[in-house]
Amino acid sequence: MNHLQSLQKWTADQGYDVTYISNPTDILYFTGFHSDPEERVLALFVFAEAEPFLFTPQLEVEAAKKAGWNYDVFGYLDHQDPFALIADHIKERTHRAQNWAIEKADLSYFRYEQIKMQFPDAQFPGNASEFLDQLKLIKTPDEIELMKEAGKQADYAFKLGFEALCTQRTEQQVVAEIEYGLMKQGVMHTSFDTIVQSGNNAANPHGVPEKRAIKANTLALFDLGTNNQGYMSDASRTVAFGTPSAKEKEIYDVCLQAQLAAMDAAKPGITAESLDNIARQIITDAGFGEYFIHRLGHGIGTSTHEFPSIMEGNQMILKPGMCFSIEPGIYIPGVAGVRIEDCVYLTETGCEAFTHTSKDLQMIPVK
Amino acid sequence: MNHLQSLQKWTADQGYDVTYISNPTDILYFTGFHSDPEERVLALFVFAEAEPFLFTPQLEVEAAKKAGWNYDVFGYLDHQDPFALIADHIKERTHRAQNWAIEKADLSYFRYEQIKMQFPDAQFPGNASEFLDQLKLIKTPDEIELMKEAGKQADYAFKLGFEALCTQRTEQQVVAEIEYGLMKQGVMHTSFDTIVQSGNNAANPHGVPEKRAIKANTLALFDLGTNNQGYMSDASRTVAFGTPSAKEKEIYDVCLQAQLAAMDAAKPGITAESLDNIARQIITDAGFGEYFIHRLGHGIGTSTHEFPSIMEGNQMILKPGMCFSIEPGIYIPGVAGVRIEDCVYLTETGCEAFTHTSKDLQMIPVK
Repeated sequence: MNHLQSLQKWTADQGYDVTYISNPTDILYFTGFHSDPEERVLALFVFAEAEPFLFTPQLEVEAAKKAGWNYDVFGYLDHQDPFALIADHIKERTHRAQNWAIEKADLSYFRYEQIKMQFPDAQFPGNASEFLDQLKLIKTPDEIELMKEAGKQADYAFKLGFEALCTQRTEQQVVAEIEYGLMKQGVMHTSFDTIVQSGNNAANPHGVPEKRAIKANTLALFDLGTNNQGYMSDASRTVAFGTPSAKEKEIYDVCLQAQLAAMDAAKPGITAESLDNIARQIITDAGFGEYFIHRLGHGIGTSTHEFPSIMEGNQMILKPGMCFSIEPGIYIPGVAGVRIEDCVYLTETGCEAFTHTSKDLQMIPVK
Repeated sequence: MNHLQSLQKWTADQGYDVTYISNPTDILYFTGFHSDPEERVLALFVFAEAEPFLFTPQLEVEAAKKAGWNYDVFGYLDHQDPFALIADHIKERTHRAQNWAIEKADLSYFRYEQIKMQFPDAQFPGNASEFLDQLKLIKTPDEIELMKEAGKQADYAFKLGFEALCTQRTEQQVVAEIEYGLMKQGVMHTSFDTIVQSGNNAANPHGVPEKRAIKANTLALFDLGTNNQGYMSDASRTVAFGTPSAKEKEIYDVCLQAQLAAMDAAKPGITAESLDNIARQIITDAGFGEYFIHRLGHGIGTSTHEFPSIMEGNQMILKPGMCFSIEPGIYIPGVAGVRIEDCVYLTETGCEAFTHTSKDLQMIPVK
């Protein structure tokens, strides 16, 4: 069953008449068509008992068909009322549009009101956001292939970044070298703003690359990822630029030990919470527990933050096909920060990483 | 009156007890603090009769204070229920939280439900999105200064792009050169994906840069912009790479004439619709009306698509301080595309462009 068929089945099984998908990323997931409509309306309607249709700005109709969507696409012009047109198309398809599912985490209150105005008797009990969270939890082999390619791009980005380290460059200029190298290869979209932080700036896990020179004989932290046809990579490496201090080496070793232990323990049957705890215990036992101030990982796929969340309190049992990050970090304010991250997918017996850049502490000669 | 004071006054004048601002761009606009919270909750609450507060993930609390926000900031941890905490903070401030304004165009149905659960008797008559659309229409001198700087960055980007044109590069590689050059100067964020389209690819106004070589003796279309501290630039230029055909020269001249006529007519008192019509009439009279398939322009400021929309049917009277694009285009399928765009701000007597790159048809030598 493909993604669209799963959504149709869910709609029918739950007794909903219509499901309204409003999030552009999710529309890509179901239709193969991607577009950022900005303030315009892009929508997918799926029915218990009728064929689905896409609704797009008029200029996008041809692109949607070209992307391989084989059902109807209806367009609208800027001066038309999109929700009046949507209502007409729905009424042509079905006499029952009473019981709706919507993406509650995405659909704006305004658009909900617009639909409600067209269908005054409608009820909205269904939450397609929750169904999607579950559906996206297990990736298909095709999706994993796309994520492997995104992982290769991230490995290439690390290579570019390590080579670009130089006391004559700022953190921002190292970012420039990475993204330039990616774009020259046709990788036009990162999955988030590339992070390069050196020295004590790396101790701020919510910091950004600054306009300040890379310092010799400190650690440099890279956190980056790419978007390969709608599927994301996300990985972190910390390297020594010159000679690190004994303290820096120590926190690196602890962080690496925690990351490797979690990679080893990541297999079907373990809970998300237990996996978090395996890494956290190692860091805590080494005396750095207070400096590991975020969860061990997050799900990844068509976004960089989805289920499963690898954190305390999440008793979800991990299963084959789940994809998530394993990214312990130790951040000592004013001193240094280390984070080591791979995203992985679970196999029947363990896990495989999407990224393969070495995790031994790399010493980059100062230049 | 600053932005925040305007929002407080509106809240009180309209008889609302609480206004909930949920859009991160708008939170920047009112607080000076920018953050992309992804799936986490970032919110500003403004009251008719109490001090406002910001609500952020715990890790962001210090950053919000550093950004200069002088009222309370409350944080939450991942395992806490943010809306239960928000309700507590609101109830500490006021006994009246009955009558709400929300950003209807932004707030998700899920978060609306969460608030409704905490305040079961609350009503939501107010639409802060509409108020913000109006408030943002007129820019302050400070905002115009930020947009001038963004315009300078766009002019620099054109220079980089024209210099990068080369038959050995693809459209995507020219994009790479532009964004690399910008990042080397510390301009880390474009306002949208940079567009470089050459030859017949430029005839698709919704196309993207392709992995195909720039062709000699055709037109190349650039559409780009930057984000300067939350304020956007957006501009388009079309240049000849080598010798253009007579037809290409002709459509360029018509498009330029339309753009200059609209620049000349853009002044307080004219309606948005009339301004669109001035450019459209010139293109129609020259026989290319059917190839000008979008509105003349859109507002710009903290986003690249806001009010005023310069289009047929919009009878809004333009006023000093309004900022918008003037961007006629002629797209002949399979042949060529031309778009010439400046964003401008209205003065008391006319308009000033944010970008100053020459609009005479530039001939870039083939290399």
